[in-house]
Amino acid sequence: MSSQSKIPVGVLGATGSVGQKFIELLSNHPWFQVTEVAASEKSAGKLYKDAVNWILSTPLPDDVAGLKVKECEPYLESRLVFSGLDSSVAGGIEEAFAKKGYYVVSNSKNHRMDKDVPLLVPEINADHLKLVKAQSYNGGCIVTNPNCSTIGMVLALKPLQDNFGLEAVNVVTMQALSGAGYPGVASLDIVDNVIPFISGEEPKLETEPLKILGRFDGDKIINNEIKISAQCNRVAVLDGHTECVQVKLKKKASIEEIKKAWKNFSAEPQKLNLPTAPLRPIYYFEEDRYPQPRIHRNLDKGMAVSIGRLREDPIFDYKFVVLSHNTNRGAAGGALLCAELMKAEGYI
Amino acid sequence: MSSQSKIPVGVLGATGSVGQKFIELLSNHPWFQVTEVAASEKSAGKLYKDAVNWILSTPLPDDVAGLKVKECEPYLESRLVFSGLDSSVAGGIEEAFAKKGYYVVSNSKNHRMDKDVPLLVPEINADHLKLVKAQSYNGGCIVTNPNCSTIGMVLALKPLQDNFGLEAVNVVTMQALSGAGYPGVASLDIVDNVIPFISGEEPKLETEPLKILGRFDGDKIINNEIKISAQCNRVAVLDGHTECVQVKLKKKASIEEIKKAWKNFSAEPQKLNLPTAPLRPIYYFEEDRYPQPRIHRNLDKGMAVSIGRLREDPIFDYKFVVLSHNTNRGAAGGALLCAELMKAEGYI
Amino acid sequence: MSSQSKIPVGVLGATGSVGQKFIELLSNHPWFQVTEVAASEKSAGKLYKDAVNWILSTPLPDDVAGLKVKECEPYLESRLVFSGLDSSVAGGIEEAFAKKGYYVVSNSKNHRMDKDVPLLVPEINADHLKLVKAQSYNGGCIVTNPNCSTIGMVLALKPLQDNFGLEAVNVVTMQALSGAGYPGVASLDIVDNVIPFISGEEPKLETEPLKILGRFDGDKIINNEIKISAQCNRVAVLDGHTECVQVKLKKKASIEEIKKAWKNFSAEPQKLNLPTAPLRPIYYFEEDRYPQPRIHRNLDKGMAVSIGRLREDPIFDYKFVVLSHNTNRGAAGGALLCAELMKAEGYI
Amino acid sequence: MSSQSKIPVGVLGATGSVGQKFIELLSNHPWFQVTEVAASEKSAGKLYKDAVNWILSTPLPDDVAGLKVKECEPYLESRLVFSGLDSSVAGGIEEAFAKKGYYVVSNSKNHRMDKDVPLLVPEINADHLKLVKAQSYNGGCIVTNPNCSTIGMVLALKPLQDNFGLEAVNVVTMQALSGAGYPGVASLDIVDNVIPFISGEEPKLETEPLKILGRFDGDKIINNEIKISAQCNRVAVLDGHTECVQVKLKKKASIEEIKKAWKNFSAEPQKLNLPTAPLRPIYYFEEDRYPQPRIHRNLDKGMAVSIGRLREDPIFDYKFVVLSHNTNRGAAGGALLCAELMKAEGYI
Repeated sequence: MSSQSKIPVGVLGATGSVGQKFIELLSNHPWFQVTEVAASEKSAGKLYKDAVNWILSTPLPDDVAGLKVKECEPYLESRLVFSGLDSSVAGGIEEAFAKKGYYVVSNSKNHRMDKDVPLLVPEINADHLKLVKAQSYNGGCIVTNPNCSTIGMVLALKPLQDNFGLEAVNVVTMQALSGAGYPGVASLDIVDNVIPFISGEEPKLETEPLKILGRFDGDKIINNEIKISAQCNRVAVLDGHTECVQVKLKKKASIEEIKKAWKNFSAEPQKLNLPTAPLRPIYYFEEDRYPQPRIHRNLDKGMAVSIGRLREDPIFDYKFVVLSHNTNRGAAGGALLCAELMKAEGYI
Repeated sequence: MSSQSKIPVGVLGATGSVGQKFIELLSNHPWFQVTEVAASEKSAGKLYKDAVNWILSTPLPDDVAGLKVKECEPYLESRLVFSGLDSSVAGGIEEAFAKKGYYVVSNSKNHRMDKDVPLLVPEINADHLKLVKAQSYNGGCIVTNPNCSTIGMVLALKPLQDNFGLEAVNVVTMQALSGAGYPGVASLDIVDNVIPFISGEEPKLETEPLKILGRFDGDKIINNEIKISAQCNRVAVLDGHTECVQVKLKKKASIEEIKKAWKNFSAEPQKLNLPTAPLRPIYYFEEDRYPQPRIHRNLDKGMAVSIGRLREDPIFDYKFVVLSHNTNRGAAGGALLCAELMKAEGYI
Repeated sequence: MSSQSKIPVGVLGATGSVGQKFIELLSNHPWFQVTEVAASEKSAGKLYKDAVNWILSTPLPDDVAGLKVKECEPYLESRLVFSGLDSSVAGGIEEAFAKKGYYVVSNSKNHRMDKDVPLLVPEINADHLKLVKAQSYNGGCIVTNPNCSTIGMVLALKPLQDNFGLEAVNVVTMQALSGAGYPGVASLDIVDNVIPFISGEEPKLETEPLKILGRFDGDKIINNEIKISAQCNRVAVLDGHTECVQVKLKKKASIEEIKKAWKNFSAEPQKLNLPTAPLRPIYYFEEDRYPQPRIHRNLDKGMAVSIGRLREDPIFDYKFVVLSHNTNRGAAGGALLCAELMKAEGYI
Repeated sequence: MSSQSKIPVGVLGATGSVGQKFIELLSNHPWFQVTEVAASEKSAGKLYKDAVNWILSTPLPDDVAGLKVKECEPYLESRLVFSGLDSSVAGGIEEAFAKKGYYVVSNSKNHRMDKDVPLLVPEINADHLKLVKAQSYNGGCIVTNPNCSTIGMVLALKPLQDNFGLEAVNVVTMQALSGAGYPGVASLDIVDNVIPFISGEEPKLETEPLKILGRFDGDKIINNEIKISAQCNRVAVLDGHTECVQVKLKKKASIEEIKKAWKNFSAEPQKLNLPTAPLRPIYYFEEDRYPQPRIHRNLDKGMAVSIGRLREDPIFDYKFVVLSHNTNRGAAGGALLCAELMKAEGYI
C-alpha cells in the first residue's frame, strides 16, 4: 500500500506516554498513517516536536515531528482515531468523537465495561466486535483495549478455558514502571524497593477478564463466571509485567496437555496475518528461570506472551509465570491490533 | 555484664555473608562476645580482616578484625557456636560439633527438618526447644533457624492460627538480593528485571511452616496440616523480602479481629526482654502503599515484621502483604534470638 | 538540657524533602526543639501528619506529627527558623523573616552569594559568621549552607588549601536522586540510565567554593581565585554524591603529606563538640574500590566526608574520589551544624 | 552472497559474554558465517546450546545452537577467527593461531600494544592495518580492537585532532555493567551504588588512544603525544559507557566549528559501505540532557557515538559528554568492523 493510499489516522492524547507509543508503532505501518495529533489545550497549536517530551528510545518519526498539534475536539479529518487519553478526560472526549461518526480505538479504561463496547483482544474475542453494531453512535463507534496487566494473563488463560474450562484464577503481579505513565513513579520510591499497591489495578484485573472471556450471544456479552483474585505490585523494571498465576480447571489436564494447548494456540490475527499480530501469541519456555521481563518482553514485536514454570499446585491445580510487554501488547500495540482486525473485517 | 563475663562464642563460616552478619549483630551484644571465627581452609590461619571481603555498610568491628581464622573443626574454646556455613558443608560440620558437646545454632538448611532438631522462631514455638533433650549428642545440640522467606510469613500467621485456625495459605514472594549471599545474583541478571525462580526456595516455604507451627507433644513435633502453595521471585531490592499472602481460616473472623490479633501479639522473647527481640513482633500499617522493603525493613532493629493491605479475598478469606528483613530477622538476627532464648531458659 | 529549656525552632518549607530531613535530624536534638512547622497555603491549617507525604524511612516523630502547619509568614513564635523552602519562593520569605528579627538558617540558594550573607561550612569558614553583624536586618540575620555537591568537595579541599595552596580544581560528579527533591527524578528516566546534566548545578559548584574558601578581611569576603571546572551527572543512587576530583597545588606535596593533611584535619565544630559535628570531618580509605555511596554515606552520622583513591595525575597534580551524604552533610545536617555553631558562639 | 559462499568463521571463547555477542552480531551477516565455536576444555565436546549460559535478550541463533564446541587449538577449518577469550589465556592462544596462519581478530587486551599489531578503529586508523605485513606469522595475523571505554572517546577525538590538534584530554567515565563480563559485578555491589574503580581500566584509557591516534610511518606506529588523564567508575547501567571529556586544543576553535567537524566526520567504513559500519560515526545532540545510555546506546546499530553538551571549559578549552555501546561498538561490533575492513581491503 503506497503512502498515498494509507488510511489516515489521528492520535488523541498524542503527547502522553501511550500517545507516543501509538506514534512509534504507527511509524511505517503498512495500512495506517498518522496525519493528525491532538492533545490538551496547552499543547494545541504547537508543532508536535515542540509540544512533546519524547521519552522513547526510538527517535521521534520525522513526519509526525512537524505536525501541528490539534485540540481533542471531533473535527479531525481522519475518521479513525486512537485514544491514549488520560482517564480523567477520555470518557467524554471519546463519546463526542463516536457521536460525530469517528471510529475510536481506545486504551483508556472509561468505556471498557460499557455494555455495548467491545473489550477486545483479537486473539480471544474477535467476535465481540459485532457489539459495535448495537452502539447508538451515528456510524461511529468505540472499541477498547484491556488494562496492561489483564492482557497477558487472559492470553495465557484463553487456551486453558477452551480446552479444560476455568473455575478459579489467582494472580500476583510484578508490574513495570512504564505502566504508570510519565513521570509516573518517582525514582526515590522504587530504587531498592517494591510498592505493593497500584491504585485501581486489582479491581480491573479481577473484572476485565470476565468480559473478555465472556460469550457474545448475538446481542450482548454473557460474562464468564471464573473466580479471580488479584494482587498488584510495582517493581523496578522499565517494561514488562510479570505475573504469577494459579488456575483451577474444570476438567483434569496433564502438564503436557496444557503446554500443547498453549503451543497450538493461534487465532484470528494470525489467520488474517494482521501486520501487528505476533507469529505465535504464546511462547512456552522450559528453563526454570524464564520468562524474564528484560529477556522476553520484546519477543515477536513485543506482542507475544511468554510463559514458563508450569507446575502442579498444592491448592489450585497448576501454577505458572506469564510475561508480556505492557506498553506494546498491553497498550498501544494491543489497540493497534484491534484496529487492524476492524479493518480486515470491514468495520473500517 | 562486663566484657570479661560475657559468654564467648564462635562463628562458623565467618567470612560468608551470613557469618559477617552474625559478627555485626554480635558486636556490643550484652551477653555474647565473638572470640573465635572459623572458615574454610583457604582462610584458616589468616587474620579475619585479611580473609574477609567485608560487604556490610557498618564497619568491621575492631576486636574481630584481628582474630586469627580457625578451621571449622570441633576444637574451638567457645562452647556456643553460630553457623553461617554453606549448606554444601554445614551438615557434617555441625554434627561433628554437636557430638563434641557444642551448642550449635545454625542458619543452614541441612538439619532443619531433622526429627529431633527444633526449627525455632522464639515468638512462635519456644517450647520446641525441649526437643534438644532428645538429641543424642553428648551434651551438645543443634538448633536451627528457618529459611529467610519462611520466617516473616510464619510470624504473620501465628496469631491467625492461634485465634482463628488456618486451613490454607498461598504466598508469592518478591525476595531481596542479599538472600542469595555474596556474590550471589549477577547485576546483569537483575537490573531492569525480575527472576521468577529461586532454586530450592518454594519447597522450603511450603514445608518449614508445617513444622514451626506444629505442636510439641512432649516427645516430638506433630506437624501442622495447613495446605501451603508458594511461588518465589527475585527482585532488585537489597534487603527485605516482600510477600503477598492469602489465607483461608478455620473460623470466621472480621478484618478488625485480625488486625487486633496481630497488634496484641507478643510472646516469650518480649516477656523475657531478650536483647535482640523486637519490642513488638508485628506492626500493621493502614496506608495502602505500605509495607515497603526500603522503608520498613529496619523497623525495631530489623527484627519486626511489617504487615499491610489486609483485605477480603474472592477465593481465600483474606489477603495481605508481609515484609521482613531477610538477613536480620530472617537469618543471623533470628538465630541470635534463638541463642538468647536458650540462654534465658537455661539451655546454655 | 531538659525539653523545657530547649530552644524552640520553626521549620519553613516543612513538608518538602529538605524540611522533612530537618525534622528528622532535629528529633531528640539536645539543644533545639521543633515547635512550629510552616509551609505553603495548601498545607497551612492542617495537622503536619496530614499535610506531609513523609518519604523518609525513619518514622515521623510523634511530637511534630500533631503540630498544626502555619503559613510561611514572619509571625512565628520561635526566633530561630530553618528554611528548606523551594528557591522559587525562598528569597522573599527569608528576607521578610530576617527583617522581623528572625535568625534564618537556610539551605536555599537564593541568598548564598549575597555579599553580607555567610555561605557557611563550620569546619571551613566559621569566621565568616562575623559577616552577619553587617547585615541590615534589625537583629535578625540570614545564614546559608552551600549546595549539596559543593560541600563534600570543599571539605576535601580545605586541608589542601591550608597546607599546599590550590591553583585549579576539576570535578565530575555522580549525584544521588535525593538531591532533586521529591518526586524529583522520574524512575523511567534513571533506571538503567545516567543523566549527564543537572540544571543549574555546574555554575554553583564552580562559584560557591570561591566564597567558602575565601578570606574574611574584617569587613567582607575576598573570594579565593582557584580555577574550577565542574561536570554534573545524575545516577541511580538514593543518597550520597560521589565526586572525581583533580587538583593542581601551589606547593609540591607528596601523597603521604596529603593523606596526613586530611587525617589531621579538625576544626571549630570538633573543638566545640557541636552535637551534629562528626568526630572527624574526613575519613581516608586505602581500598581501591572505596569510597562508595551505599557503604560510606552514613559514616559518622552522615556528616563525614569519605575520600579514597588518591593518586598522581598526568595533567593536574593529584586525583581522588570524594563521597558525602547529600541530604545530611549536604543539606539539613549542614545547616543544623551552622545553627549549632551560631548558638555555641553566642549569635543565637 | 548466498549462505554457501559466505566466509566461514570461528569464534574463540564462544561461551563467554563477548563470544556470545560475536555470535549475535554474526547471525545473518552478509559476508561471514559462524561455522565453528571453540571454548575451554570444560565446554569442548558439548553442543553449543548446552555449553552456553546464553545471557543476551535476542534468541540464540539456531544454526549455532547445534554446533559442537571445539577446543581453542589451532586446528579449526575456518581461517578467520574472532577472539573473545579471557585475557588470562588469550595471549598464547591467539599467537598459536596466528602462527598456524589464521587471521585472528581479537577483542582481548593481550596483544593490543604489541609493536606490530594494529590497534584498529576502522574510522580512525584504517592505514594501521598495513602493520600486519610486518608480522612474523606465516601468513596469519593478529588484529586487535581497543578497550570498550577507549573506543567511544577516540571516535569523538579523531575529528578534533584532524581539524584542531589535541594537547590534553581529561576523561571521567561512568561505565556499564556488561563491560565486566558475566557474572561480573555482583548486584549487591551496584544497586543503589557507584564503584569508583575498575581494575586496569584507567591505564588502558590513558595509553591506547596514543597508539590509535598515532601515525603509521610506513614501518611502525609513531604514538601521538597527547596528555591523557582518566578516571573510571562503574554505575548501575546495563549497556553503554558515558564519558565526561575535556580537551585542550592546539588551534583555537569555536563551538560551531567543533560541531561541524563532528557532523562532517565520515571515513573508510562509510565509504566502503561496510555491513556493520554506522551510517554516521558521530551524532551530536543539542538537548542538555543528552546523550543518555538507555536512549542512545543502540543508535545506528549500536555502532555510532553520541555526543552532547559541548561547552567552554574554565581549565581546558572545551568539555562534552560521549556515549557509546560498550559491547557493540566497544567490543564485538568493533572487532567485526575490523574484519569487514580487512575483507574489503583484501587482507582476508
